[in-house]
Amino acid sequence: MELHLDRLPRSVELVRDGEGPLFRYVDERLLPHEVSISETRDWQSVIEAIKCLAVRGAPAIGIAGAAAMALWSAYDGKDVEQAAAEIASARPTAVNLRWGVNRALEKSSGIEGDAQTEMLYTLVKLMEAEDEETNRAIGRNGSALIDPGSRILTHCNAGSLATCYFGTALGVVYSAAAEGKVERVYADETRPVGQGARLTAWELAQVGIPVTLICDNMAASLMAAGNVDAVIVGADRIARNGDAANKIGTYGVAILAKEHGIPFYVAAPFSTVDAQLADGSGIVIEQRPAQEVLPEPIDGVDVWNPAFDVTPARYITKIVTEKGAFSPEELEARL
Amino acid sequence: MELHLDRLPRSVELVRDGEGPLFRYVDERLLPHEVSISETRDWQSVIEAIKCLAVRGAPAIGIAGAAAMALWSAYDGKDVEQAAAEIASARPTAVNLRWGVNRALEKSSGIEGDAQTEMLYTLVKLMEAEDEETNRAIGRNGSALIDPGSRILTHCNAGSLATCYFGTALGVVYSAAAEGKVERVYADETRPVGQGARLTAWELAQVGIPVTLICDNMAASLMAAGNVDAVIVGADRIARNGDAANKIGTYGVAILAKEHGIPFYVAAPFSTVDAQLADGSGIVIEQRPAQEVLPEPIDGVDVWNPAFDVTPARYITKIVTEKGAFSPEELEARL
Repeated sequence: MELHLDRLPRSVELVRDGEGPLFRYVDERLLPHEVSISETRDWQSVIEAIKCLAVRGAPAIGIAGAAAMALWSAYDGKDVEQAAAEIASARPTAVNLRWGVNRALEKSSGIEGDAQTEMLYTLVKLMEAEDEETNRAIGRNGSALIDPGSRILTHCNAGSLATCYFGTALGVVYSAAAEGKVERVYADETRPVGQGARLTAWELAQVGIPVTLICDNMAASLMAAGNVDAVIVGADRIARNGDAANKIGTYGVAILAKEHGIPFYVAAPFSTVDAQLADGSGIVIEQRPAQEVLPEPIDGVDVWNPAFDVTPARYITKIVTEKGAFSPEELEARL
Repeated sequence: MELHLDRLPRSVELVRDGEGPLFRYVDERLLPHEVSISETRDWQSVIEAIKCLAVRGAPAIGIAGAAAMALWSAYDGKDVEQAAAEIASARPTAVNLRWGVNRALEKSSGIEGDAQTEMLYTLVKLMEAEDEETNRAIGRNGSALIDPGSRILTHCNAGSLATCYFGTALGVVYSAAAEGKVERVYADETRPVGQGARLTAWELAQVGIPVTLICDNMAASLMAAGNVDAVIVGADRIARNGDAANKIGTYGVAILAKEHGIPFYVAAPFSTVDAQLADGSGIVIEQRPAQEVLPEPIDGVDVWNPAFDVTPARYITKIVTEKGAFSPEELEARL
């Protein structure tokens, strides 16, 4: 299998021209049938892009949040606390968004104007580089857990499209594939937004890794048939004890993996760990609009549409970070 | 809560006029936004309607199979073995289709012409009446298992729309609701065909039962939140030992129910039990087209689309039939 990682677009990127900083992102709502790069200089448009899932994925929205602060500095500059609060609250579950905005807030305090913009631009470029480096380290650490000939199941998209580049869960896949250990990836379609069907399947096919799309409700059958050797997913927030919030459906897959004796790995940057949270019960779960599930309402039919769930630590074999792969107990000991 | 069971259409029905028998069915592909009654006198069109899921649900396709035989007798009459084989093989998993065709074959042997058509017409009308009576008995037997105030999760559609009238799993819901014991039903949307989203949610709303639609991957979270008191599903084929084939995703829901200590009930007519099958490993699982999952193909992306899965008996609390509600062991003892 020949890998073509060069075919992956950078999902989020801050660039600049004579006018100042410019935020570029792949509008992921249009994938897989259109690869469209959007650009904006308006920090509030970045918030909109995050809210409507044009930009998504915990690491990517962390960087987008900091980039929005750079745009604010360059083209607005008023009421920093208000701007930071608006950006940080675009989505509630991922810790990365607040983390990205807070890094920008720290860097921008005490300076203003061009110096502030320059400082923030440099910060975002640093975060982008850190992100790729972190993901490559996660990939290496995770690959060590993967046996040759593995069939890997993943849920949602924790790939290059969820980060600046390379991905977390899919970073592990890319590293393991580079070592010739990946036979095939199964991608849960991940209703209602379809990040698996539209993003993960497309991303893996771009790179040249054999990929089979399944509906979310087929994972149990696939496991019972003996076709899954490992499950790898990303995370939006991890509590001290290892409880991990990720895309809705992850918790169910973790139960199924345990029932079938299949290892369940969570891959995420160490910054995803929220040391303030004792366990997953404190994680706010974003509720999304009914229209995502049911585009045309049916009279008398309600919809429940949580965007995330929390997988208790007891279902997680290892949490793979750039600092190493840890059991939930080992992770807590390192905090 | 006021129940309006009269608002449910009869999903399949054989009628006749001066010309002879006529098969009427609700084209379920058009629900919930259009309630369209189709009619045909062509037995091969009935096969097409079954294959394309215009007519679906194990009990309904059993009756549709016998009705196709009546149309064959009235308007064709040639090569009975060939016609019966074609009808019986329209879909492979549900035992009911073969059972319906075989009943028609037995009744039609040794007679021909109008006498044969009359015999088959009478058989189908009998099967329709038996179906409703059976479902009402399943409902009563199942309702006895439901506690007051229950929140019930179901997967796919085992309702009036999957039978002639009243339904199996939803028959239990209707009986329990009539006794004031149902607080709410949660319907899995049931990808890829959406029988939960399009049929179950609509059917329950018609009747006036509070219903919340969820994506298949949300069931685990719903259970963890303490919002599910019982799971009830239908079945397409049940082996001697109680292993039950049903819509893809049922097996996963059964595992989740067990993990959360929630009873898992399978409701089906006794004729769904295939006494020839020792266990579920002998059940043929229908593979359906990739387009159901991914309407527009993505280059390099494969699709796996099994229509059913098999839930091992150990996950099943009771199998609810018209003869009573049995544990898998009790069921086997009665064969």
